[in-house]
Amino acid sequence: MKRFLLTLVTLALIAGASIYGGQTMAEGTKQTQTIIRAGEQPFIKGLGEFFTGNVTLQRLFDPKHPDAPFGAARVTFEPGARTFWHVHPAGQHLIVTDGVGRTGTAGGKVEEFRAGDVLWCPAGIKHWHGASPGMPMTHIALTGTLPDGKNVEWMEEVTDQQYNGGK
Amino acid sequence: MKRFLLTLVTLALIAGASIYGGQTMAEGTKQTQTIIRAGEQPFIKGLGEFFTGNVTLQRLFDPKHPDAPFGAARVTFEPGARTFWHVHPAGQHLIVTDGVGRTGTAGGKVEEFRAGDVLWCPAGIKHWHGASPGMPMTHIALTGTLPDGKNVEWMEEVTDQQYNGGK
Repeated sequence: MKRFLLTLVTLALIAGASIYGGQTMAEGTKQTQTIIRAGEQPFIKGLGEFFTGNVTLQRLFDPKHPDAPFGAARVTFEPGARTFWHVHPAGQHLIVTDGVGRTGTAGGKVEEFRAGDVLWCPAGIKHWHGASPGMPMTHIALTGTLPDGKNVEWMEEVTDQQYNGGK
Repeated sequence: MKRFLLTLVTLALIAGASIYGGQTMAEGTKQTQTIIRAGEQPFIKGLGEFFTGNVTLQRLFDPKHPDAPFGAARVTFEPGARTFWHVHPAGQHLIVTDGVGRTGTAGGKVEEFRAGDVLWCPAGIKHWHGASPGMPMTHIALTGTLPDGKNVEWMEEVTDQQYNGGK
């Protein structure tokens, strides 16, 4: 049960998702501008069933408005660390803020990216992303959320061969 | 006419908005992961009818998926620079990446914020944001987009007195 809860928390953190109902999305009763201060939101270690290597996640915000349902998380990958294969049902943007990364898609080639790059992964595309072998990488992940709250479907681990560009 | 077009471009850049139709939102024909490299997207100066002082904008991405209609822009304000008063019909998140900023809401007090802070402005709240007097500020603005493409309504200039916390 503890592991199940941890999984839920990690799932939520990964994409900034929350299981939101109509009330939360309607912004409840607190209709004012809010500031979450640096350091107020925890940094969490990525679980071994979704990540290879050391990964740290910080949820930045959950979906807040029914017309713009997306969440954000800051994720840092140590050198060589990466996600498992996964699909986003409403797509995902990555704004790379630091370091050098790698990403791959099913049937595609492995590509390197760097701080300042912006990635878009359309809905339904099976992909992975992480750090390069020699440099950590941090990105802000912006993930669309379906009306049922779903924003990611996790799959199998990315092998070393796949990470290194082999088939 | 040139000014009108400039205004449109600036409006789009401010919030990462685009006038998208069904085709663009359905992601057209190119269903693959894409990487926009650092430096490929232009930095644009903010127009004097929406900003006070020197402001630089870089569109990061437009809305891409009908279930997650939001755009992103990186905006840098020189010390003392700020937006005019405005409202976002589907809300706006600000992820502060550098420096020290100020923000105010109609009827509320002026608040300072810093790199690492995350701001949320709900739909319909009249607000402004910019740099502090002594430090530049850069944020990534993530702005929800209504089905008709609208994501911001611009209003009057923020006076020096309002910027400095006066009524």
